[in-house]
Amino acid sequence: MTLKVVSAKLAAEIDKELMGPKVGFTLQQLMELAGFSVAQAVTRQFPLDKTSSEKTNVFVIAGPGNNGGDGLVAARHLKLFGYNPIVYYPIRSSRTEFYKQLTNQLEFFKIPVLSQDNSADWKDYLKPEKTLCVVDAIFGFSFKPPLREPFSSIVNELHKLQETVPIVSVDVPSGWDVDKGPVEDIYIDPAVLVSLTVPKPCSELLKSGKTAHYIGGRFIPRDFANKYGFEPFNYEGTDQILKL
Amino acid sequence: MTLKVVSAKLAAEIDKELMGPKVGFTLQQLMELAGFSVAQAVTRQFPLDKTSSEKTNVFVIAGPGNNGGDGLVAARHLKLFGYNPIVYYPIRSSRTEFYKQLTNQLEFFKIPVLSQDNSADWKDYLKPEKTLCVVDAIFGFSFKPPLREPFSSIVNELHKLQETVPIVSVDVPSGWDVDKGPVEDIYIDPAVLVSLTVPKPCSELLKSGKTAHYIGGRFIPRDFANKYGFEPFNYEGTDQILKL
Repeated sequence: MTLKVVSAKLAAEIDKELMGPKVGFTLQQLMELAGFSVAQAVTRQFPLDKTSSEKTNVFVIAGPGNNGGDGLVAARHLKLFGYNPIVYYPIRSSRTEFYKQLTNQLEFFKIPVLSQDNSADWKDYLKPEKTLCVVDAIFGFSFKPPLREPFSSIVNELHKLQETVPIVSVDVPSGWDVDKGPVEDIYIDPAVLVSLTVPKPCSELLKSGKTAHYIGGRFIPRDFANKYGFEPFNYEGTDQILKL
Repeated sequence: MTLKVVSAKLAAEIDKELMGPKVGFTLQQLMELAGFSVAQAVTRQFPLDKTSSEKTNVFVIAGPGNNGGDGLVAARHLKLFGYNPIVYYPIRSSRTEFYKQLTNQLEFFKIPVLSQDNSADWKDYLKPEKTLCVVDAIFGFSFKPPLREPFSSIVNELHKLQETVPIVSVDVPSGWDVDKGPVEDIYIDPAVLVSLTVPKPCSELLKSGKTAHYIGGRFIPRDFANKYGFEPFNYEGTDQILKL
């Protein structure tokens, strides 16, 4: 039987093997490609209106782990694509020097990076009339409920905002259980989901037809996908995303 | 005055600053993007003929330094894009563990990687009737003539072959002086040049109209380009290359 989705547990195994000694991908490579694919999905879904320069902001909320790193990379590419990204990065990862470098790169591109200190009012920077979408890069396939502060408050705010500004979730809508979907009464209901490598079970709970579902993270060969029980996706040309 | 090209010396300064403590790009990130752009240029210039599966090979020759690394990354993306890359990597870099990982990644994708040992007859693997192009990723902007073995012999062979199989040079046609162009009687005359970040002076010596010239390596902001005296390129959408 061919899997359409892989569980949180299997996703962790895939990730581990991809960065293990045999395959030898590095986090930096995979994150660059994943972040690029998120930026491409945003561009596909929310093309810049060349006749108007009013609405070019993309508000990226980056979590403390690798999902957040994907968001930081996506912000940099979005700037190169002509967007005006603003990043809210409340809990900065200190696990490796590389995370510090990712934020240096954003400064190099003059992309504002808000931290918890200067953003008691991060919402003031999220101006709906100027914002095409919010990128939810808070938590990915290794998240386990419940949400804790400051992220539970952030998700509450996004819940209020999501009818006004569409949300693009990276891999998993933040706060959702990876396998079971929404577990709280108040949850993010993304307008766009960008699944990385292969969708997770919670993606099957998206309201059909309402959420645009993209796959990104084009970096595995067919054999590897088959070994884990799924088929690779038929990306076109050099595209790093495919709309499902 | 706006520069159209930057010298070998300036290119080295740009590279150093991009990977310096302030900007904080890593080699792994820049190489992933550069290699991706080379693969995209190959795809744009030599699209796969979907009606025929005869001619899908791309023969990548990787040098011992970072230009070679770009070639290794390009080979991996080309495989994902449906091509059949074959890599000749005669002198393998041992400068960092990362280079070993790049070749592991190729094995993971079942891409043949020939070394000097198993390829006294590397040319036997380069079958013109099956090969869309040769990617010359031997030397880049830090090369100083003269060519030494085994690369002088390889360039001699490519010189003989180039009327039959088009050559795609990465950043600099290998063997050319970065600033002055061809310095030997026998030299590579590429069908395609993919300049990275900004063209080098030797690119102005390409026979006008004969060589398709692409720019790739889309990873610097406008201010940074201007600081070094050139204008950034008007890439379209999410493209990682632009045909000049």
